[in-house]
Amino acid sequence: MEIAGARLAFTTDSYVVSPIRFPGGDIGELAVNGTINDLAMMGAQPAAISLAYVIEEGLPLEDLRVITMSAAAAAARAGARIVTGDTKVVGRGQADKLFVNTAGIGVVADGVAPSADRASVGDAVILSGPIGLHGVAIMSVREGLEFEVEIKSDTQALNGLVAAMLAVEPDIHVLRDPTRGGLSSALNEIAGGSGVGMVLDEPAIPIPGPVRAACEFLGLDPFHVANEGKLVAIVPAASAAAVVSAMRANPAGAEAAIIGHVVADHPGMVTLRTIVGSERIVDMLVGEQLPRIC
Amino acid sequence: MEIAGARLAFTTDSYVVSPIRFPGGDIGELAVNGTINDLAMMGAQPAAISLAYVIEEGLPLEDLRVITMSAAAAAARAGARIVTGDTKVVGRGQADKLFVNTAGIGVVADGVAPSADRASVGDAVILSGPIGLHGVAIMSVREGLEFEVEIKSDTQALNGLVAAMLAVEPDIHVLRDPTRGGLSSALNEIAGGSGVGMVLDEPAIPIPGPVRAACEFLGLDPFHVANEGKLVAIVPAASAAAVVSAMRANPAGAEAAIIGHVVADHPGMVTLRTIVGSERIVDMLVGEQLPRIC
Repeated sequence: MEIAGARLAFTTDSYVVSPIRFPGGDIGELAVNGTINDLAMMGAQPAAISLAYVIEEGLPLEDLRVITMSAAAAAARAGARIVTGDTKVVGRGQADKLFVNTAGIGVVADGVAPSADRASVGDAVILSGPIGLHGVAIMSVREGLEFEVEIKSDTQALNGLVAAMLAVEPDIHVLRDPTRGGLSSALNEIAGGSGVGMVLDEPAIPIPGPVRAACEFLGLDPFHVANEGKLVAIVPAASAAAVVSAMRANPAGAEAAIIGHVVADHPGMVTLRTIVGSERIVDMLVGEQLPRIC
Repeated sequence: MEIAGARLAFTTDSYVVSPIRFPGGDIGELAVNGTINDLAMMGAQPAAISLAYVIEEGLPLEDLRVITMSAAAAAARAGARIVTGDTKVVGRGQADKLFVNTAGIGVVADGVAPSADRASVGDAVILSGPIGLHGVAIMSVREGLEFEVEIKSDTQALNGLVAAMLAVEPDIHVLRDPTRGGLSSALNEIAGGSGVGMVLDEPAIPIPGPVRAACEFLGLDPFHVANEGKLVAIVPAASAAAVVSAMRANPAGAEAAIIGHVVADHPGMVTLRTIVGSERIVDMLVGEQLPRIC
């Protein structure tokens, strides 16, 4: 989008996650990181963020203080500024504690144009790190589950990681953060949007042991669980190794890996070569598996 | 704010008005007009608008359809585009029907810099039209009141009116839309921000008969009631008459008038010369007189 001669990205998201404070973060940090990541997935670096609250009467002021500090800190870490805000209060029972909206303006460099319809046969599919942490962290708290190892949300800003990737390969074809619907939905949307197939390599996809255990217990598929600090990139095969190297040098991409390839076969469909050598379809999540996860 | 060389304004507002459809408009139109007006009060013309919903499960789809059409139509009328959006659904009883957030990016012309701290002694205080319509329309529906003449919200976009004003006088000192807290709060904030006094002329301030009657009945002060399609401008005395003429040529400013002047006396205080010749203080609204009015 061009405004007054500047190449800008603009995005908005409301956050209704429950609980509003969870292992690894809270709704304020989640909202700021989420909007920064939406911009980053458009290849943009964040310039300005807005923050708007709908508060249920009776929300403890301490919660509001912690969440606001956490939103401000998240913006500062990503080099973004919260420049405008709004607060509305509704009566008890007219909202559930706190809803947060963030919108963001980002600046897109010339030559950068990632888009879900640009995956091309032969491209590499790159994942920035282990999946399933955010969704499982939220569900565990809600279900009152405790695991030996606490599972924490992976909420983090990815704009620094994206900048490092674009420095190596400005023409990254697709960037997507696998939030609602998880890795599976993100890749299926790209396959559908680009009219290509994808073949993934199961052993290459990192699923933390505690996430795997919790998913079995809760009846979830880790491929469908929301992430809030991970990205998928579709990049030309020739630069894939260099992009992964650049990602691994960044804390947000320390476990980045090529997890598969774009193929001409079965357009619109994503398949997985499993550890035992069989091949299965990675299906799109229909409906909402986990309500109020973000 | 300058982003990538462009002089931009950025603003956000959440809307929690109850009821979501009311005489003269609905929450979708209100939200779009409100954000366009926030930009206009910064001297900006709208370039891009975001629209985000938090929906309570069970909201009739017909309401959502009407409200979305109405938001789109409001944007189109103002020459703005809704370029991004988001939808979250929460369970029954976790929100009250529908909350709407809009954020907006506007473009500010060079030399335009209205600000609440720029009112200067001798300036004219201009009001764009009759006050009290939005707040009284909402309260009347909520209280189940019917008047002989239906009172409709004045929700409308003011960017066209502001453009007409700036064409005559690019250096308008202050622009403010008297929403929450009404005319009284808007003028008090300007007087406080600029360290000046104001003297208003009661007969010059248009209060529609039905608004006056409803306010008496409901125990409200029309000066404190929210407006959603009006503005106050503080302009150099030399150009005030020309600005008013330009406003009157625009439908949104057909009843524009000079309602008072900025004075050196009683800094931070707004006084009113009443119809009977006495002088009274126009006080700031403390707390929220009318919850969920916008």
